[in-house]
Amino acid sequence: MASSSFFLWLLLFAVALAAVESIPVFVPGAYKSSLLKKQVKSAKPEIPYEAHYFPQVLDHFTFRPRSYKIFYQKYLMNSQYWHEGAPIFVYTGNEGDIEWFAANTGFMLDIAPKFRALLVFIEHRFYGESLPFHKKDLNSAKTLGYLSSQQALADYAVLIRSLKRNLSSEASPVVVFGGSYGGMLAAWFRLKYPHVAIGALASSAPILQFDDITPWSSFYDAVSQDFKEASLNCYEVIKGAWTELDAFGKRKDGLEKLSKMFRACKKLSSVDYARNWLWSAFTYTAMVNYPMEANFMKHLPAYPVEEMCKIIDGHSPRATKLSRAVAAASLYYNYSKTEKCFKLEDEDNDHGLQGWNWQACTEMVMPMTCSNGSMFPPSPYSYKEFADDCNRQFGVWPREHWITTEFGGMRINLVLKRFGSNIIFSNGMQDPWSRGGVLKNISSSIVALVTEKGAHHVDFRSATNKDPEWLIDQRRQEVEIIQKWLQEYYADSKQD
Amino acid sequence: MASSSFFLWLLLFAVALAAVESIPVFVPGAYKSSLLKKQVKSAKPEIPYEAHYFPQVLDHFTFRPRSYKIFYQKYLMNSQYWHEGAPIFVYTGNEGDIEWFAANTGFMLDIAPKFRALLVFIEHRFYGESLPFHKKDLNSAKTLGYLSSQQALADYAVLIRSLKRNLSSEASPVVVFGGSYGGMLAAWFRLKYPHVAIGALASSAPILQFDDITPWSSFYDAVSQDFKEASLNCYEVIKGAWTELDAFGKRKDGLEKLSKMFRACKKLSSVDYARNWLWSAFTYTAMVNYPMEANFMKHLPAYPVEEMCKIIDGHSPRATKLSRAVAAASLYYNYSKTEKCFKLEDEDNDHGLQGWNWQACTEMVMPMTCSNGSMFPPSPYSYKEFADDCNRQFGVWPREHWITTEFGGMRINLVLKRFGSNIIFSNGMQDPWSRGGVLKNISSSIVALVTEKGAHHVDFRSATNKDPEWLIDQRRQEVEIIQKWLQEYYADSKQD
Repeated sequence: MASSSFFLWLLLFAVALAAVESIPVFVPGAYKSSLLKKQVKSAKPEIPYEAHYFPQVLDHFTFRPRSYKIFYQKYLMNSQYWHEGAPIFVYTGNEGDIEWFAANTGFMLDIAPKFRALLVFIEHRFYGESLPFHKKDLNSAKTLGYLSSQQALADYAVLIRSLKRNLSSEASPVVVFGGSYGGMLAAWFRLKYPHVAIGALASSAPILQFDDITPWSSFYDAVSQDFKEASLNCYEVIKGAWTELDAFGKRKDGLEKLSKMFRACKKLSSVDYARNWLWSAFTYTAMVNYPMEANFMKHLPAYPVEEMCKIIDGHSPRATKLSRAVAAASLYYNYSKTEKCFKLEDEDNDHGLQGWNWQACTEMVMPMTCSNGSMFPPSPYSYKEFADDCNRQFGVWPREHWITTEFGGMRINLVLKRFGSNIIFSNGMQDPWSRGGVLKNISSSIVALVTEKGAHHVDFRSATNKDPEWLIDQRRQEVEIIQKWLQEYYADSKQD
Repeated sequence: MASSSFFLWLLLFAVALAAVESIPVFVPGAYKSSLLKKQVKSAKPEIPYEAHYFPQVLDHFTFRPRSYKIFYQKYLMNSQYWHEGAPIFVYTGNEGDIEWFAANTGFMLDIAPKFRALLVFIEHRFYGESLPFHKKDLNSAKTLGYLSSQQALADYAVLIRSLKRNLSSEASPVVVFGGSYGGMLAAWFRLKYPHVAIGALASSAPILQFDDITPWSSFYDAVSQDFKEASLNCYEVIKGAWTELDAFGKRKDGLEKLSKMFRACKKLSSVDYARNWLWSAFTYTAMVNYPMEANFMKHLPAYPVEEMCKIIDGHSPRATKLSRAVAAASLYYNYSKTEKCFKLEDEDNDHGLQGWNWQACTEMVMPMTCSNGSMFPPSPYSYKEFADDCNRQFGVWPREHWITTEFGGMRINLVLKRFGSNIIFSNGMQDPWSRGGVLKNISSSIVALVTEKGAHHVDFRSATNKDPEWLIDQRRQEVEIIQKWLQEYYADSKQD
């Protein structure tokens, strides 16, 4: 299976069903993976971490001979502020190179001196360099089968325990941090491994985006809301662009015209690529609608949704909606003005990053639809079609209800009101993932920090001198809460 | 591998190392498995449960093609007191036929009418009828590898969720019950699956019998303590019997003499069998030192330790210590006076019950020693020897620290003081397993109920008119606490 066709299949699939957009959003397939490389390269000098490799067991939950196979899990460490007994802050890595998350989680580095904390970023199995099998063998359920969130959590528990022992620092309190899928892992880690981590800061963690806990349309409704808030005209132009796009698909010279309009590096072979390209641009831009210039998914200006809408609103109303939408989307792909043309079809994937597609097709089943009120074409969700496609691709079936069986989520207030403690769920309402997050306090120590203007784990970014007051305040609250956890831990330790 | 030699190996091994006595104690190998059959047969008319079979997935934590294999998990149900929305009481089955646990957990049946509870007893994978593979294939790590406590917990979560959906009773609160290893599972289930069970009653659950949390000698010290409390002479006679036994091993006609003294059905081929036979009798009798006649491990009179000591103390002091110990041990094997001779070597195993030996050799590593003060021969613990033997037997290595990594245990007060809720740890101090249990309240809702005179999950037995006041009181407290959980749950539900 060629990795490019693999990604294309999934991207097409996402659009066709408009239901599994979670796939390119979480791991934005070719877009993100090709970008990663650049970012990592440019980020490397900025991140003061030392790489280590931990011998990790392939399968924690069975004891077959095969389960004992060892692979090397990468983790990054910075101990410059640390002293023995002081806290250990662990980032529970998500679906990508760990350097990328380290570079985009400057918050931990910013607060490390205050806490004299040891910083550890652990790479998620099957991503980056932490591959249990050779890349060429990462193409079947026999190998990918070992990629799951529960295995990843167990990896973190084993690694942290070993690390603490090696550092003779078993009494050091561990706090886990994570953003997005990494935030889900952080929250789940605190819930499943309270003996390893005393608390978790889970930023933009959509742990309620499963089954029917969150309305299926809420993700794309939230994307649309961002654009509507920026400009009603902008929202309407984008909403109208899709029919124009489809009309091209029916014209004889449609693909040729579209290729020109989209400045495709080579002639498009399907309208679907164009649709994906637009779709991803609007979705990701809503996610990273940060109040400052940033380079997370792509290099973008501050408040990029507003910037996109300025482009749309600035165009002559006589221009087609589609051409205006394309101009806006180009901001996402080419803010730096370095691209002469756009590769809508060929994106390379050299990160062994099939990972998220696999996870979405097995455990991370997140139903999504586009409602009539959204700016995307209305699309239903068919679990059957989704499952059939996954099975065709990987030869195994999704486990539709597994995540909520293993980690819960239904009636979470009722469940956690008297159970568990020390979790911060932080969300920014600009981020469409916020809708699947925990947005209200559950108890005195399982709390929600919600900002109206925040985007995808913006609180995890390095502080800048352009940070708005609400962001400074959010981070201050996070620090205060973590301080409280640590104080309690040290006080309890003395009594114990 | 013949199952009989398999068991013998482990039993011999246990004595040789005096460290893995946990193996015959938890699943008393041949003794229990042969007994089970009889008990189940006689118990069947008394237990008003209907058997069901649930299609369960082989491996919850990986997504290999093999993981999807289905096996049928047995569970027993009684809905005669239940109505929709009322609580569901689930017994988290342990290492044996589920009928056996149902028959010996009359407490749940006793309290069901009061709560109008649905009763469900779920059989543990790889035990009883819940075999994922054909019996003849249950002999290698390739198949047994899927037998682990985490997989079992996930089975319970999946089954309970499905059951509630099928009963259209998703709002029914679930309380889990378990004794011994089943109690460990119940407590862990509440900790790992708070969204499935609102509380757990864990009776005689030695969740702290791992690593170095509990002193390694405490188990056999506790056995010895029981006998010492009954009679100091009794303790000393047993303590002295082992050297006499060993002396026979050195005599030419030793095995012949021993065979006669032990009333062995066929001539012993090793002193080890005799040693095991005695060792098991004293250990199990301490465990089930119930205040009433009972038939759990074996049919025994009330306060069987006292009865054994009466036998020893009643013998002429001129009789050898060994002969007196044998007479006492015979009470354990032959209280019903039905045995003409004792099968010290050949015990059949037709329950597919290699299970616990496997679990002890992989995850359930419980170090144990006999101190000089115990009534057993002093014996050290060598992890290396233990691990080598396990590897020789199964071809895989134990994971020495896995249970405490996955489930915690170290500094449990500190960890759970502000985390989790609604667990009762009940223990009787006559039971040597109590030493590895939680014996002090951890928080206002993670509590310990300890009785001085209680034995191995005596609170789970059916009420009788001979129950002492302390036992009636213990059960009353358990009912009251469970009532409180349910009241809170219903009140919280209304607000949610």
